[in-house]
Amino acid sequence: MTIDRSKISWNGWGWAAHADALAGRDEVWSWLAAELGMPALLATPARTLESITLQPPRLDAEARAKFESILGAERVKDGTYERIFHARGRSYHDLLWLRSGEIPNPPDAVLYPRSADDVLALLHAAGELGVAVVPFGGGTSVVGGVTADTGSFGAVVTLDMSDMDRLLAVDPVAMTATAEAGIYGPALEKALGEQGFTLGHFPQSFEFSTLGGWIAHRGAGQNSLGYGRSVDWLVAAKLATPRGVLTAGGYPASAAGPQLLDLVLGSEGIFGVVTEATVRLHRKPAASDYRGYLFHDFGSGAEAIREAVQSGIPAAMLRLSDAGETRFYRAFGALGKKRGLRGRIEDFVLNSRGFDDKACALVAGFEGGDADVARGRAAFAAIAKKHRALSLGEGQGRRWKEGRFHGPYMREPMMEHGVGVDTLETATRWSNVETLYVAVQDALEKAIRETAPRDGAHGVVQCHISHAYPDGASLYFTYIFPRALDREIDQWRTIKTAASDAIAAHGGTISHHHGVGEDHLPWIAGEKGALGIDVLRAVKMALDPKGVMNPGKLVP
Amino acid sequence: MTIDRSKISWNGWGWAAHADALAGRDEVWSWLAAELGMPALLATPARTLESITLQPPRLDAEARAKFESILGAERVKDGTYERIFHARGRSYHDLLWLRSGEIPNPPDAVLYPRSADDVLALLHAAGELGVAVVPFGGGTSVVGGVTADTGSFGAVVTLDMSDMDRLLAVDPVAMTATAEAGIYGPALEKALGEQGFTLGHFPQSFEFSTLGGWIAHRGAGQNSLGYGRSVDWLVAAKLATPRGVLTAGGYPASAAGPQLLDLVLGSEGIFGVVTEATVRLHRKPAASDYRGYLFHDFGSGAEAIREAVQSGIPAAMLRLSDAGETRFYRAFGALGKKRGLRGRIEDFVLNSRGFDDKACALVAGFEGGDADVARGRAAFAAIAKKHRALSLGEGQGRRWKEGRFHGPYMREPMMEHGVGVDTLETATRWSNVETLYVAVQDALEKAIRETAPRDGAHGVVQCHISHAYPDGASLYFTYIFPRALDREIDQWRTIKTAASDAIAAHGGTISHHHGVGEDHLPWIAGEKGALGIDVLRAVKMALDPKGVMNPGKLVP
Repeated sequence: MTIDRSKISWNGWGWAAHADALAGRDEVWSWLAAELGMPALLATPARTLESITLQPPRLDAEARAKFESILGAERVKDGTYERIFHARGRSYHDLLWLRSGEIPNPPDAVLYPRSADDVLALLHAAGELGVAVVPFGGGTSVVGGVTADTGSFGAVVTLDMSDMDRLLAVDPVAMTATAEAGIYGPALEKALGEQGFTLGHFPQSFEFSTLGGWIAHRGAGQNSLGYGRSVDWLVAAKLATPRGVLTAGGYPASAAGPQLLDLVLGSEGIFGVVTEATVRLHRKPAASDYRGYLFHDFGSGAEAIREAVQSGIPAAMLRLSDAGETRFYRAFGALGKKRGLRGRIEDFVLNSRGFDDKACALVAGFEGGDADVARGRAAFAAIAKKHRALSLGEGQGRRWKEGRFHGPYMREPMMEHGVGVDTLETATRWSNVETLYVAVQDALEKAIRETAPRDGAHGVVQCHISHAYPDGASLYFTYIFPRALDREIDQWRTIKTAASDAIAAHGGTISHHHGVGEDHLPWIAGEKGALGIDVLRAVKMALDPKGVMNPGKLVP
Repeated sequence: MTIDRSKISWNGWGWAAHADALAGRDEVWSWLAAELGMPALLATPARTLESITLQPPRLDAEARAKFESILGAERVKDGTYERIFHARGRSYHDLLWLRSGEIPNPPDAVLYPRSADDVLALLHAAGELGVAVVPFGGGTSVVGGVTADTGSFGAVVTLDMSDMDRLLAVDPVAMTATAEAGIYGPALEKALGEQGFTLGHFPQSFEFSTLGGWIAHRGAGQNSLGYGRSVDWLVAAKLATPRGVLTAGGYPASAAGPQLLDLVLGSEGIFGVVTEATVRLHRKPAASDYRGYLFHDFGSGAEAIREAVQSGIPAAMLRLSDAGETRFYRAFGALGKKRGLRGRIEDFVLNSRGFDDKACALVAGFEGGDADVARGRAAFAAIAKKHRALSLGEGQGRRWKEGRFHGPYMREPMMEHGVGVDTLETATRWSNVETLYVAVQDALEKAIRETAPRDGAHGVVQCHISHAYPDGASLYFTYIFPRALDREIDQWRTIKTAASDAIAAHGGTISHHHGVGEDHLPWIAGEKGALGIDVLRAVKMALDPKGVMNPGKLVP
C-alpha cells in the first residue's frame, strides 16, 4: 500500500492530523452565523470511534474460510476500524452517518487482494457464496459509490485494491504507462515523475484516491483542460468480472467495433473491478504559470473561457468563480485582518474600474514548455483584456495551487459548528450554461431556506466553472447551510433532490465528474432513457450474472 | 437525397462519368506488367448491367404490403438496378462480384424512410415479419459492411438512409450541429460552410459517404489530426433499434456512467440505425498550407510525425509514404514524360544529399487561423530539418490535396487490365510501428507471390502512415497484384487472411478506420476476447432481440 491508512481520518477527510485552520477563530463562526441568517452556531461534535458498536459480521464460516483460502487469513479483516473505514465514502451525507456513529450496514469483511487472479477468485467465490462485493480504491466517493450494500444478499464484503499498486511498465516511445489500479495518486505521479512523465490527473481527492477509482467513476482532474479527463487518457483497461477478465481498448485508435472502454469508465464496480490500466502520459512540464483575473461578471468570464477553449489556447486550467464564491472567499480571507492602506487602495481601484459585487475571480493555469506557457498566457491575457478583466497577478494563482487539495478539510470544522456544506456538479453546452446556473442556484437557495432550522435562516450558494470544453462547461456548486439537527439526513436529501431535479429539468448531466453511485440513482433513468438502462443491465447480466457486484449503484 | 445516385457507378467507384486518366496510355500497362513480373496484362472487362439477371425478390406479399403501408409504395423499390446498387459495398472483393455479374444474394427490396418514425416502424415490422435489415448510407464500405445477408431469415431488405438528409440545427455558441444521418459529406459541409463552420471530416469516400456511415463504422477522415475522428467529434446520437430509440451522449462531458456513444460508434448497424447525430464544429479555416517533404527513410519520417504529435504541433494532417509508395508514384508520374534538364538536376540534388531508394515522401497539412498555420508549419519544418528531410514545397501538397479523393478511381482501369488492387489498414503504438509494418508487408508480399497466376509474378506493396496520435499511428497498405482469374475470390481471401493474421499476431488492430463488416469477422474475437464478444452480443440481444439487424457483421 502506498499510503499509511492509519493516518487517514475514518470519519472525515484526508489526513487525520491535518491542522484545523479555523481552530479558535471565533470571528469566523460569528461571521458565518450572520452569513447564514443564524443568531449563533451550535457545537455538534462527532462520536468517537471507541464509542461505536457495529452489528456483528454476517459472513458465515464457510464464506470466511473460502476468502481466507484465497488470500490468507491476514488479508480478510473484520475489525471495527476496518469495517467503519470502508462503510461509506466521504460525502457530506456519509460524514453525517459516520460522525453520528450510526453505521447500519458496514461491510462484513474487508478483503485485500494482491493480484488480478486474487480478484477473479474472490469474485467467483462471492458469486458462488451469494455475497455482495463492493470494490474500493481510496474510498473518496462523494456520491455513495462505495457504500456497503448487501443488495439481495445476506452479507457484503469490500474489496480494497490498495495493495495492487505497482507501476508495471512505462513505454517512453508511445508515452504510455501501465499500472495496477490500486495505486494512489501521489505514488503514481512520483513513479512517473522519476522517468520524466506525468499523467496530469489531479482531482481534489488526488492524495487519497486511486487510478482505478478515477476510471471507475469516470473522473476529471483539475487540469483536465490540459491533460484530459479519464476518458481521454485511458488507453486500455482490464476489468476483472465474475465471468473473467474483460480487456478493453489497447490501440491508439481502432474502428474494430465498440472499444468497450466506455463501459469500464463510469462502471462504478457494477460490472467488475478495474485491476490494471494503461494511460497516456505527458512530459513533466518545464514551466508552469498560474495567475488570477477579475471579471466584471460571470457572463463575461464564461465567455472568456469559451473563447479560449474554442480557439485552442493551450491552458491547463481555467476556473471561474461566480460572484457569490468570489465575495465569500474575499470576505473570509479578510476576517480578523486589519484593513490597512493597501486594502483601501485596492477597493478604490476596483470601484473606479467599475467592479462591484458582481465581480468574478478567475484562475488561469498554463503548463508545458516555456514557449507554450508563454503563448497560452499571452493569448488568454488578450481575451481577458477584451472583456475588461483585471489581471490579479501570480499571487492569486499560487495561492489557489497551494490550496488546491484543501477544500474538503473545511467541512469538518463547519460540521463541528452546526453547519452543513455539500457540493454537486453538472455540465451542459455553452448555450445553456447561464440557464442551468440560474436554475440550480435558485433551487438550492429555495430548498435551503425551506429546510433551515429557523425562519429567516438561509444558505450561501457558490458556483464555479472548473472544466471547459469546446462545446460546453461544468458547473460546480458549493452550498453552506445551517444544519437542521433533528432531521439532517432529510434536510440533505431535500436540498440534493431540488438541485438534481433542476439539473435534470434544465439540460444538465446529473454528474460531470463525481459519478452516480447511490445518490444520483433517481436521475439516471431520466438521463439515459429506458433503453439505455436496459443496455447497461444487459451488460451487467453478461459480466455479473448473479448480481453480486456493488449492489445499488449506477443502475436502478 | 443530396446526391444524384443515377450518376454513381453501380459496379465501381464514384461518378460513373469520371474520366479514366489511364485510357489509351499503353506505356502505363507495359510498365505495370513489368512491375508485377508479368509478361503482359489481359483485358478483363466487366459485365454490363443489362446482361445480369437476379434471383426474384423473396419478400412475400404480406411483408411488401406492410413496408408499403409504412412508407408508401414508391419508397419500396425492387428493380434490378436498385437491388444491384445496394447488394454490396465497394471493396475490391465487392467489385469482383459486381463486375462478374454474379450477385447471389441481392436485397429483396430497398426501403427509403423519411423519418426516424419511419425507421422505427420498419424495424418493428421487420422483426415481426422475420426479415433481415441492412442499414445503408452511401454504401462505400470496403469491409462488407452493407452486404445484403439474410442471416437466419428468408429475406433481406436494405434501408437506404439517403432521404434523411436535413441539417436540423446549428448551435453557434456551443459550436455543434445536429443533422439527420443520411446526409452526404458534401451536402453537410456545404450547409455548415454557409454558417462559417466545418466538421473537417474528409475520408477518401467523402463525396459518396454519409454522416451516419461515418459514425456506424467509427471512421476517421484524412484530417483527423486536426479535426478528430468520429469518436472525437460525435457529441450525441440517436440510434433507432427494433426496441425503440437509444439516445447516447448529449453532454460536453459526463460522469453519469457509460455514455453509450462507444456502442453506437462502430456498431455497423447490428444494434440499430443511426438516424440523427450532433457533432462538434470548427470554424472554417482562414488559412491552409499543404506541403511536401522528403525523408531519408521511413524510420526518420515516422519519428518526425511522432515528435510533432507528441509535442502538440497544430497540424491537420501528417502523411508519410514508405519507400515503395514514394518510388511507385514517382515512377508512375514520370511515365511517358521526357526526362529533361530539370529532372536530371532534381536527381543530382537528391543523390548528392544522400537520398536513395529508401527515400520517403511526407505531406504535411496545416489549417486554421493564420498564426496557427504559420506556427504549425514552422514547428514541423524545424523537426523535419532535424531529421535532414528535404522540403519539397507547396506543389507537392497541392497535388496531394487535389487528388485526395481520387485514389479509388484507379481500381477499375486496373481491374480492366487483369490487375487487382486492394487496401487494408491497422494501428498500433509507436514502439511497435516498425515491427508491425515489416510483418504485414512481408505477409502481403509472400501471399501475393504464392497466389500469383504464374511463377515469378509478384505484387507491389505500399504503405503510408496517415493518422497519428500521441501514443501511436495507423498503417495503411495498398497492394497491387496480378489477378489469378480462375480463382480470384480465393486469391483475394488468401492475401487478406495472411495480412490480417500478421496484424493480429503483431499487436495491430484489425481496423483503424474501415470497420469490421463481414471481411474482418474472423479476427474480431481474438481482438475483443470472448468476454468482449459476449458483451456485444448482450447489447445486441437487448436492442435487437430477434436478430434482424445487419446479420453477419461485426460479431460472429
